[in-house]
Amino acid sequence: MNFVIPADVPPRKKDLFEKNSTTISKETDHVFLFSCDQKIEHLHDAFNPENDDIPEEAVDPEHFFKIGSQGRIGALATQLELIARYGAQYPDIPYIAKLNSKTNLIPADQKDPHSQPLWHVKELIQMREKSELKICGVGITVYLGSEFENNMMQFAAKSIFEAHKEGLIAILWMYPRGKAIPDETDAHLIAGAAGAANALGADIVKIKPPSATNEKNEMQALQEVVAAAGNTKVIISGGSKKEPQQFLHTLHEQIHAGGAAGAAVGRNVFQNNLPKAIGMANAISAIVYDNASVEKAMAFVR
Amino acid sequence: MNFVIPADVPPRKKDLFEKNSTTISKETDHVFLFSCDQKIEHLHDAFNPENDDIPEEAVDPEHFFKIGSQGRIGALATQLELIARYGAQYPDIPYIAKLNSKTNLIPADQKDPHSQPLWHVKELIQMREKSELKICGVGITVYLGSEFENNMMQFAAKSIFEAHKEGLIAILWMYPRGKAIPDETDAHLIAGAAGAANALGADIVKIKPPSATNEKNEMQALQEVVAAAGNTKVIISGGSKKEPQQFLHTLHEQIHAGGAAGAAVGRNVFQNNLPKAIGMANAISAIVYDNASVEKAMAFVR
Amino acid sequence: MNFVIPADVPPRKKDLFEKNSTTISKETDHVFLFSCDQKIEHLHDAFNPENDDIPEEAVDPEHFFKIGSQGRIGALATQLELIARYGAQYPDIPYIAKLNSKTNLIPADQKDPHSQPLWHVKELIQMREKSELKICGVGITVYLGSEFENNMMQFAAKSIFEAHKEGLIAILWMYPRGKAIPDETDAHLIAGAAGAANALGADIVKIKPPSATNEKNEMQALQEVVAAAGNTKVIISGGSKKEPQQFLHTLHEQIHAGGAAGAAVGRNVFQNNLPKAIGMANAISAIVYDNASVEKAMAFVR
Amino acid sequence: MNFVIPADVPPRKKDLFEKNSTTISKETDHVFLFSCDQKIEHLHDAFNPENDDIPEEAVDPEHFFKIGSQGRIGALATQLELIARYGAQYPDIPYIAKLNSKTNLIPADQKDPHSQPLWHVKELIQMREKSELKICGVGITVYLGSEFENNMMQFAAKSIFEAHKEGLIAILWMYPRGKAIPDETDAHLIAGAAGAANALGADIVKIKPPSATNEKNEMQALQEVVAAAGNTKVIISGGSKKEPQQFLHTLHEQIHAGGAAGAAVGRNVFQNNLPKAIGMANAISAIVYDNASVEKAMAFVR
Amino acid sequence: MNFVIPADVPPRKKDLFEKNSTTISKETDHVFLFSCDQKIEHLHDAFNPENDDIPEEAVDPEHFFKIGSQGRIGALATQLELIARYGAQYPDIPYIAKLNSKTNLIPADQKDPHSQPLWHVKELIQMREKSELKICGVGITVYLGSEFENNMMQFAAKSIFEAHKEGLIAILWMYPRGKAIPDETDAHLIAGAAGAANALGADIVKIKPPSATNEKNEMQALQEVVAAAGNTKVIISGGSKKEPQQFLHTLHEQIHAGGAAGAAVGRNVFQNNLPKAIGMANAISAIVYDNASVEKAMAFVR
Repeated sequence: MNFVIPADVPPRKKDLFEKNSTTISKETDHVFLFSCDQKIEHLHDAFNPENDDIPEEAVDPEHFFKIGSQGRIGALATQLELIARYGAQYPDIPYIAKLNSKTNLIPADQKDPHSQPLWHVKELIQMREKSELKICGVGITVYLGSEFENNMMQFAAKSIFEAHKEGLIAILWMYPRGKAIPDETDAHLIAGAAGAANALGADIVKIKPPSATNEKNEMQALQEVVAAAGNTKVIISGGSKKEPQQFLHTLHEQIHAGGAAGAAVGRNVFQNNLPKAIGMANAISAIVYDNASVEKAMAFVR
Repeated sequence: MNFVIPADVPPRKKDLFEKNSTTISKETDHVFLFSCDQKIEHLHDAFNPENDDIPEEAVDPEHFFKIGSQGRIGALATQLELIARYGAQYPDIPYIAKLNSKTNLIPADQKDPHSQPLWHVKELIQMREKSELKICGVGITVYLGSEFENNMMQFAAKSIFEAHKEGLIAILWMYPRGKAIPDETDAHLIAGAAGAANALGADIVKIKPPSATNEKNEMQALQEVVAAAGNTKVIISGGSKKEPQQFLHTLHEQIHAGGAAGAAVGRNVFQNNLPKAIGMANAISAIVYDNASVEKAMAFVR
Repeated sequence: MNFVIPADVPPRKKDLFEKNSTTISKETDHVFLFSCDQKIEHLHDAFNPENDDIPEEAVDPEHFFKIGSQGRIGALATQLELIARYGAQYPDIPYIAKLNSKTNLIPADQKDPHSQPLWHVKELIQMREKSELKICGVGITVYLGSEFENNMMQFAAKSIFEAHKEGLIAILWMYPRGKAIPDETDAHLIAGAAGAANALGADIVKIKPPSATNEKNEMQALQEVVAAAGNTKVIISGGSKKEPQQFLHTLHEQIHAGGAAGAAVGRNVFQNNLPKAIGMANAISAIVYDNASVEKAMAFVR
Repeated sequence: MNFVIPADVPPRKKDLFEKNSTTISKETDHVFLFSCDQKIEHLHDAFNPENDDIPEEAVDPEHFFKIGSQGRIGALATQLELIARYGAQYPDIPYIAKLNSKTNLIPADQKDPHSQPLWHVKELIQMREKSELKICGVGITVYLGSEFENNMMQFAAKSIFEAHKEGLIAILWMYPRGKAIPDETDAHLIAGAAGAANALGADIVKIKPPSATNEKNEMQALQEVVAAAGNTKVIISGGSKKEPQQFLHTLHEQIHAGGAAGAAVGRNVFQNNLPKAIGMANAISAIVYDNASVEKAMAFVR
Repeated sequence: MNFVIPADVPPRKKDLFEKNSTTISKETDHVFLFSCDQKIEHLHDAFNPENDDIPEEAVDPEHFFKIGSQGRIGALATQLELIARYGAQYPDIPYIAKLNSKTNLIPADQKDPHSQPLWHVKELIQMREKSELKICGVGITVYLGSEFENNMMQFAAKSIFEAHKEGLIAILWMYPRGKAIPDETDAHLIAGAAGAANALGADIVKIKPPSATNEKNEMQALQEVVAAAGNTKVIISGGSKKEPQQFLHTLHEQIHAGGAAGAAVGRNVFQNNLPKAIGMANAISAIVYDNASVEKAMAFVR
């Protein structure tokens, strides 16, 4: 077992918590989340075939599920109800249910970001029980530094507590953002966000890669973030689409030089046609779970 | 069965969900909603006999129900309590209960639009049980891009979950609107809204027809919206009153060229005297449910 | 029975609903409410003996109850707790319990009007059960067009549903007001408000008399309002004190030419000494319930 | 019995309500509250020995309880939890539990006053049951005219209803205050506030003494306030410290010329050393409860 | 027993309350809290090795727990979920669970400080029961004078009541702060805050050391604060890192000259390597619990 079992997991749920952590970590201490919450977070921007050389088939939300069922991933992370709409067809995918979301329509200078609750752990449990879907955990976004940060911290704290009570893994998307945040990837800020995630009880925290500081390069900065997160695992968000070799190289470094426990990747996977997307998922899994070299992982892409 | 049964419909409610979807789709995979929520949404503007050559009889809310009972429609969609006030007299109409609404009194530049909950699924169920009305589903409006979008997304998510738990169809009115939205019919924006409706769990999403883009004409733009909506059915709002032939021609194109699953039409039906309104309802049903040509459908209007 | 029984009244409460409607309508299809909510709504302005030639005795809240018990009225409408404070002494008066209220202290340009809930149907039922008071229904104010309209519509919708569940009559005070409302008695606006009250489920809507339009005189304007309200009864607020003959003449016209179902009158009754106030109540009842002429009604005043 | 028993007191609680009213009125129809909520309302300003010649011993909150147990008072009114901290040592004092409070830190022009709920009747009942303290009633402050007046009216209405349900006396601190209130002691405004307290269901309303008007002197103004309050008893707040003879003279006039039912006095009592404070309490009680003359009451002070 | 048992502790929980107070006071009437809530309150600023000569090992949240288990402390005070993440490994440390928190990201002039609830006593109890951790009490921060002070006072009041109901000690972090507070350490203001904590029911109040006034030096000012707090114990926050001898000297004075009941110290302990941190903890405990002189306490540091 490579996950700490926190004290708010009741004794009779410890086996389930362990099973869920084993599922998404494939019995390692690493995790690869396939991030698929962009249908609300980015609306059409992440799918528009007129942009960025995205294939037509990526527009269909089912594209996520085809990749998730045919490619090798730790878990597919998306809004609870997207799981509801496709889960019966894809019952074998391990899922992480995102519980809050916002669109990208309101500009930062109009209103600080606020990701309000859409669902609660209670609803997840009701749905899991009636459908027997493999939902292993929950995801919640917190925009630290937003004028609404406390609403989101409150929802995060509550959801983590409820998730642990049910033996579910709790993952925070921890993003400093808002009028008070001049630099969202400042290394000390990201380290603080990771530490806050630990104090909020997260099993895993997803962050953006921290920038280099005057004294530390990017990977040393990441080490500091990982240290600040304590016994919460740090996974790195994949961000916008990059050249595969370069993307995998960075990922390999984040794990081996930076100490990250894995990655949460969306666009770099699904903004490809199905075979290429499956290849990318498999390449990422090779690095995250099998300690593969970049060269070896690239074999899945070609 | 032409509707996906989402995973949050419990096994013992699947038959009811199927019955409700069969009722409003008349055993096709298409839907025609008769939209009658304007008594709150437009106040007197949609009924004022001094405007637009609206007949006196349209002022009476019972006009909706006369049309709904004598004309051919999929379901009459209106506020829960308007159903309560006329339902006992018109028990055979299939209904969709709108759960939120706002008036048109507050100008856009004074306050972003906010459609707050008026009723919940719980009350619908209580009323259905004691009255045996044929309420098949719920409708919720979400103004994406409004500063209050998250309140509405939250209510939509909650209502959809509760509706499915009771075997009801869930329909979202998905309208980008507010200070942050310069163009409410931008095709990519509407596609994003349709995708968000899918991630929120809607069975059907009602949208305004998207505008043409630089690269796509209106019907191609609609195809993209339909693709983005995944397994959520897209129906098009009828908007303000048009010449019948032109209206039916556009509707026919939206379905056959654009891939829409139907329409939600109000003013183009009820802003007519009863016989003409019934004719329009029948003409729309012919196109939506029977694959009739515009010419054939026009026979009901003349 | 002259009231529609809406579908949210459960079968076992239909008799009570009918009894309550029969009580306040005196077995006609008309209603006269004695409006007594000014102790909060107007504070001292409606009672100040230094104003408008108001008698000293009107300052005492018991004045309402003396009039209500000795004069002929449909029901005395006031805040739930004012009923609690005097009801045991005046158990034979039929009451309508106002559930929300605000004072008149905050100027319109400081903050849009917001009448927040003070009590709920649940508390009314508890009180009625332990005291055996004759509470026949509830009253809720909605300021349409206020930035808080949706809070009030939400409370109205909820209260109406709960009232009907308990066999109580639901009455809306429907007043367009706020920065977005340039003309509070615009006929189309009032018609819209009446239609919205119908869609919110009100059995009775209280409005201010609509102004004449370019095309219609005041009574024709009122007819349009009555038509827009559908099967919701329209009653007219009495407003500030007028000369009795003139007041009764207008009331007679509103009913016979305008189609109103009655009136809600406060100041024109209670801003008189007890005998004169009783006379006014009796005169109004003669017109509302007995189809008396103005001349005949004036006999009660002299 | 000199108190009205309102209709929301259930039959099985009428004895308790009567007992509580008898306790605080000492079987008269008058009331003297010893007001001790300044530890939150005024913070250190009412206790600072550097001010106003306040003795060192007044700083200790126990000073309230020493006075309350050794002096003659109707009830000691303070925050629920201050009762919790000293009540076990002083179980024989009758208490009124203040349920809401605010500090004096935020200036009027920064934000209108808002006294939010700190406790509810439910908690009072739980505490009373486990400790057997003599808690006779509740106190709630309402700042009429504040932009938050409706929140406070709502809490007042709810607390009064719940208090009556449990046989407790309900007292409102009714203070017009905020940007919309140019003159907090305007006689008509105070009369309106007293009338609103009656409509909210208060058994007793505490007000500041109204100013004279053009037509009435201070005591005539108070008579009007008392009339407007109907069957709610009016008690006058003592305000800042005055010379004892002058203070008692005013109190005597307020009762005998103005018609007040008593007073709520804090600083004029506790800003003295213990013997003098007990003397003041006894002097006030002599006037309030025994119809003593000022001269006779002054014997307790000297 | 050196703690008052307040009246809201039910009889069957008095033993537990006494046990908890004995644990954190080590059978004296003094308390030393090891403050470890900075992972959220200060984010990375209190841990950044690039600052203030903080050792690398302090970045790891486990550093708190190593110190807490090997050093001598009254209790380790930190967020509930940080206890959840490390408590199973460190079951012998007595804990105080902080229930609310905020980050330091939003500048004072952007928004007044607001520490919203993250957890409630209910969750603490659930966790304690399933894990058998030694959680002795709760901590809540209140920013008096903030525009949100009442939300925090409300949460404090509720949490204190619930904590006492469960036999837990309740501690308030009482910090005047916000646009309305020009001087956060003004002695009268701090005295007022301590008095308010007493009226809110706190067993212990943590304050910043008050500044000298024109008439009193710092220790006399503290005496006034202690007097104003009544039977609530006053402990002083340690603040930013100082030279050990100077820090311990001040602490000794605060207790012996100022009358404080102890201290809550974080950075002056944990911003050291483990052996030095343990030494500081032991030195502080010697002064707080054993009446040791500064010289004797310094033996632990060297």
